[in-house]
Amino acid sequence: MIIVMAHNASESDIAEVVRRLETAGFKTHLSRGVERTIIGAIGDKSRLAEIPLEALPGVEEVIPILQPYKMASRAFRAGRTVVQVGEDVAIGGEQVHVMAGPCAVESREQLLEAAARVKEAGATILRGGAFKPRTSPYAFQGLGTKGLELLAEAREKYGLKIVTEVMDIRSLPVVAEYADIVQIGARNMQNFDLLKEVGKIDKPVLLKRGPASTIEEWLMAAEYILSSGNMKVILCERGIRTFEPYTRNTLDLSSVPIVKHLSHLPVIVDPSHGIGRWQFIPAMCRAAIAAGADGLLVEVHPNPAEALCDGAQSLTPSLFAQTMAELEKVARAVGRKL
Amino acid sequence: MIIVMAHNASESDIAEVVRRLETAGFKTHLSRGVERTIIGAIGDKSRLAEIPLEALPGVEEVIPILQPYKMASRAFRAGRTVVQVGEDVAIGGEQVHVMAGPCAVESREQLLEAAARVKEAGATILRGGAFKPRTSPYAFQGLGTKGLELLAEAREKYGLKIVTEVMDIRSLPVVAEYADIVQIGARNMQNFDLLKEVGKIDKPVLLKRGPASTIEEWLMAAEYILSSGNMKVILCERGIRTFEPYTRNTLDLSSVPIVKHLSHLPVIVDPSHGIGRWQFIPAMCRAAIAAGADGLLVEVHPNPAEALCDGAQSLTPSLFAQTMAELEKVARAVGRKL
Amino acid sequence: MIIVMAHNASESDIAEVVRRLETAGFKTHLSRGVERTIIGAIGDKSRLAEIPLEALPGVEEVIPILQPYKMASRAFRAGRTVVQVGEDVAIGGEQVHVMAGPCAVESREQLLEAAARVKEAGATILRGGAFKPRTSPYAFQGLGTKGLELLAEAREKYGLKIVTEVMDIRSLPVVAEYADIVQIGARNMQNFDLLKEVGKIDKPVLLKRGPASTIEEWLMAAEYILSSGNMKVILCERGIRTFEPYTRNTLDLSSVPIVKHLSHLPVIVDPSHGIGRWQFIPAMCRAAIAAGADGLLVEVHPNPAEALCDGAQSLTPSLFAQTMAELEKVARAVGRKL
Amino acid sequence: MIIVMAHNASESDIAEVVRRLETAGFKTHLSRGVERTIIGAIGDKSRLAEIPLEALPGVEEVIPILQPYKMASRAFRAGRTVVQVGEDVAIGGEQVHVMAGPCAVESREQLLEAAARVKEAGATILRGGAFKPRTSPYAFQGLGTKGLELLAEAREKYGLKIVTEVMDIRSLPVVAEYADIVQIGARNMQNFDLLKEVGKIDKPVLLKRGPASTIEEWLMAAEYILSSGNMKVILCERGIRTFEPYTRNTLDLSSVPIVKHLSHLPVIVDPSHGIGRWQFIPAMCRAAIAAGADGLLVEVHPNPAEALCDGAQSLTPSLFAQTMAELEKVARAVGRKL
Repeated sequence: MIIVMAHNASESDIAEVVRRLETAGFKTHLSRGVERTIIGAIGDKSRLAEIPLEALPGVEEVIPILQPYKMASRAFRAGRTVVQVGEDVAIGGEQVHVMAGPCAVESREQLLEAAARVKEAGATILRGGAFKPRTSPYAFQGLGTKGLELLAEAREKYGLKIVTEVMDIRSLPVVAEYADIVQIGARNMQNFDLLKEVGKIDKPVLLKRGPASTIEEWLMAAEYILSSGNMKVILCERGIRTFEPYTRNTLDLSSVPIVKHLSHLPVIVDPSHGIGRWQFIPAMCRAAIAAGADGLLVEVHPNPAEALCDGAQSLTPSLFAQTMAELEKVARAVGRKL
Repeated sequence: MIIVMAHNASESDIAEVVRRLETAGFKTHLSRGVERTIIGAIGDKSRLAEIPLEALPGVEEVIPILQPYKMASRAFRAGRTVVQVGEDVAIGGEQVHVMAGPCAVESREQLLEAAARVKEAGATILRGGAFKPRTSPYAFQGLGTKGLELLAEAREKYGLKIVTEVMDIRSLPVVAEYADIVQIGARNMQNFDLLKEVGKIDKPVLLKRGPASTIEEWLMAAEYILSSGNMKVILCERGIRTFEPYTRNTLDLSSVPIVKHLSHLPVIVDPSHGIGRWQFIPAMCRAAIAAGADGLLVEVHPNPAEALCDGAQSLTPSLFAQTMAELEKVARAVGRKL
Repeated sequence: MIIVMAHNASESDIAEVVRRLETAGFKTHLSRGVERTIIGAIGDKSRLAEIPLEALPGVEEVIPILQPYKMASRAFRAGRTVVQVGEDVAIGGEQVHVMAGPCAVESREQLLEAAARVKEAGATILRGGAFKPRTSPYAFQGLGTKGLELLAEAREKYGLKIVTEVMDIRSLPVVAEYADIVQIGARNMQNFDLLKEVGKIDKPVLLKRGPASTIEEWLMAAEYILSSGNMKVILCERGIRTFEPYTRNTLDLSSVPIVKHLSHLPVIVDPSHGIGRWQFIPAMCRAAIAAGADGLLVEVHPNPAEALCDGAQSLTPSLFAQTMAELEKVARAVGRKL
Repeated sequence: MIIVMAHNASESDIAEVVRRLETAGFKTHLSRGVERTIIGAIGDKSRLAEIPLEALPGVEEVIPILQPYKMASRAFRAGRTVVQVGEDVAIGGEQVHVMAGPCAVESREQLLEAAARVKEAGATILRGGAFKPRTSPYAFQGLGTKGLELLAEAREKYGLKIVTEVMDIRSLPVVAEYADIVQIGARNMQNFDLLKEVGKIDKPVLLKRGPASTIEEWLMAAEYILSSGNMKVILCERGIRTFEPYTRNTLDLSSVPIVKHLSHLPVIVDPSHGIGRWQFIPAMCRAAIAAGADGLLVEVHPNPAEALCDGAQSLTPSLFAQTMAELEKVARAVGRKL
């Protein structure tokens, strides 16, 4: 950590910062420039968080040098984490996995039809919300446990894994019982109590990036899960909030190679929420795979025009099938398979 | 609601949109321009959310006309809501209330000292976190129930009300038992299950704006609480996420007059989290009151340089006292009292 | 255009809006809902900009229906514009063109070396700045006309086209004399006088998206050039400003398919400025082509560690060559060639 | 400057960074931590910009310690700069100056009426655009030189100073001839050639913050003017681009105390462009003065409903007069006068 002192900091200000650091067990070294003095601190970084250095007199800025996450970092694990989902699906390996299905489970008919079609097109995992986070309290909130049962039926019938969201600690046990992958939604990325709880289960967790979260905060959220004991974390880029009004969010595909540089965890992309308009989803699926994503999360609905949620961003089964054919070529072009 | 059809939409596309709307009970009217056709729909807006119009062929854009919130709107209540906290504190009336205290309750000594000093300077409400949302799992997470007991002791001793955050549904009963105002933090603004639960208690709720939330989404979060039965909602602006790196967030003071225009709910400002650097907090407190805020939430620590959290943005008691003297003048200049 | 009246607008407010619209030659139609009245206006949209409807009493919101750009729109030209650069380069056709070279022309040796290497790797156009926009007045500002002469020499020697930036109307004649493509930088995207002037020359113009510009504003900037008489406009996505600090900007690849949906103009991508860190440029080049970009603009320097500008985001010639080999595969996977 | 080496940087990588720095005349010092080595560099910071350290092998991050601006900094001038406009107006002194008038000069009648009314209400400076930057090439572009003549006539008649925008180097001589303060608009904040030219004139320059500009970049733009020889720079906050759709921009009032902390230059606020809706302008004027602004720039039109530009954000003369009365009280409350 580097502490930059103000140009008018006194000698006693400097001495006090050094004293505080050394009391906390750090080695310090001073560098006196023409305009200001800089103090370097070496030691156990986790203790530094406890010293409010910015509040000490004469301190202008505190610059952290090391990343605040540990278990999520490449330093912790040099190789790549492959998250095994059941016996036959491995996220983060050579194969790019596509998770597809409706925004919400609406009915048995809708879900089984969606499952049949995405399976046929090559998806390996079925998505579908049973508990739905909705901006409006007046919007459809999901079928709850009934939705989970339908997902399980579809899994059985079509040999797909299932991924579904948990919003609330109270429903975690039942979600974890049914799901193959438990999803933490973007709005809950910093629901720290929920993160700690999914850190204690023995199921893979799909952690979506919050719409106002930096890459570092996203990895810190993963750290909550990892440090609670669950190493099966899959990151999911789904767009960040920007000033551009045309798209629902701005899909930050650069986070894919960056996360792979900073962390050993696999990362997938959800272009449906990132863009919000079905017309542009196929192009962004192709781009995500070309950027190195380990998988995709795509909304597909048998009849988007009748969907109870997110109809505007859902692909029809036939457009999805056509997109999968294109994706297969892109995956091959970058040395992966679909 | 206005549905803009694409310039190449067919007559049957148009007819289908009209059919869907009328089936759902809407009256429609068509307006055929030179370049495109526009369909207006009049009826019960809450049913419109269920029709995925954007997914229908030929639809280019769907433009909502009415605000999606009801109970939070001025149409629902033309006057201003004044939230009564106990018998002697009224948020949203003539008096501007200042809520001050440390980021986190750290010890009995720290809290009582903070309480004594903020009371002396004119604060009416003591803030202090017992359950702390922290970006890092390795940072101090709060004293929990012990912290609540200390807050209650300080309340007793100094005649202050207390405001403290609830992060988790499991700890809501105990937080609601101790707190005079229950705070929903910025990161939980869209934790919808938690919103529904605080909507069922009989205590005022302080709802912070999420860092990536529009004013409309913030009011929709309030709507979750209101529609669950709790009308005592106080909104709190605390800065939004922008590209500016100098400040922790960008404090959006324009939200104060805007919220008062759109809603009947009172609104206060938290410049500590908005700015993140103590030097600029007094100026932004003055600006908040001049903009029309009904109160302030300010971090004050007996010794910021020893604080376990947010030391960089905490005022010392003496700077806080000096700031309060300035605020008194600004409040009077805008026809309020402090 | 739709005018939404406030819920408390009077009949005379409504009548006045209608009068103003009809005076300006519009046909109007009223739609009276339960909560408010909506006025639709049909006519020559260009005249609407002149009426400050929002300032009329009782008007709550004015919602434009039609895109404000004309010549840049698909309605103006249904097919795709292919911008011909000399005889043998066509931007927007089947072939994806890569424009590569150093941020700034620094010396004859540096430029010729860069030109040789990018040509060898398959680039068709050489980039290099002679006039450099720099955040600091103390940074290297470019070689000026001398830089243009060196670019011309490199063109001659290696059979490459050249693209270079114009910053100032005074240097436009000399830049237009030397360049095959005249570049408008991101910071000048709304330098309207400069846009009008490049609209009068007979050279292709590369128009970068401004870091705070919406897609609509970007197309409006193109409209300035088109409406001044120059139809040879190439759009260039280069990242927008967001809160994410890890990257220089956030590269908005979704703008590629969106621009192609809204406009007939070709669009290329500059991942170097979008990301700002060389490690992630190859992945984002691949993603850009997979998303449908018609070309790339990539910084390549013979020796990034000695570069006078943007060394951190420049590829070495060997990494560039390796990237081109990968791009060739991705281009083929999406039905293009490189 | 601090250079953070990657955890796997080799000894020769470190040695090379040191060699490069020392060759450029820097003193270096190494700090070897458990996880990585950090190199500090002391010397003439302006030479550092020339070394692309990030491009050297093994370098993970380069962290600048010193602010890149010199003449704009408090280190350059410890006191406050007061910009004298003629003999009787001083920006940055005890008095808060209000610059008011229409967005654009439209006609003699409109301008003289506006001038009379803003003078009467207490404004000391008349604003009005003769050359207008408009997003659309089809919108009213201003009266040009004729507008400047009208401004001069109003100045003569009402004893006001005038501030007006220059967009283009070609019209700078005539704008500088007429104006008392030459305005650089937000979109031109990084039009570096224009900045250099206004740095050579002997008139005060009002420099608006660009919508995507950090505070540091804004001060760097000021540095262009200062380092070209013109010390009479007035900064103007006018809102930054964020995701919030309700306002035209997000007015960043925290920039007022921050700029005063970092720089000696005076700073004023333009809430009209910051907010874009007249209803909220008075509240934000009050907040700006309470935050410490040295002045305001406010759009006032005799008849906003007939304005050729920005009608929605213009105050009527009577609302302006009422606002001025309120501002007088706020100014007094913070120890200033109006």
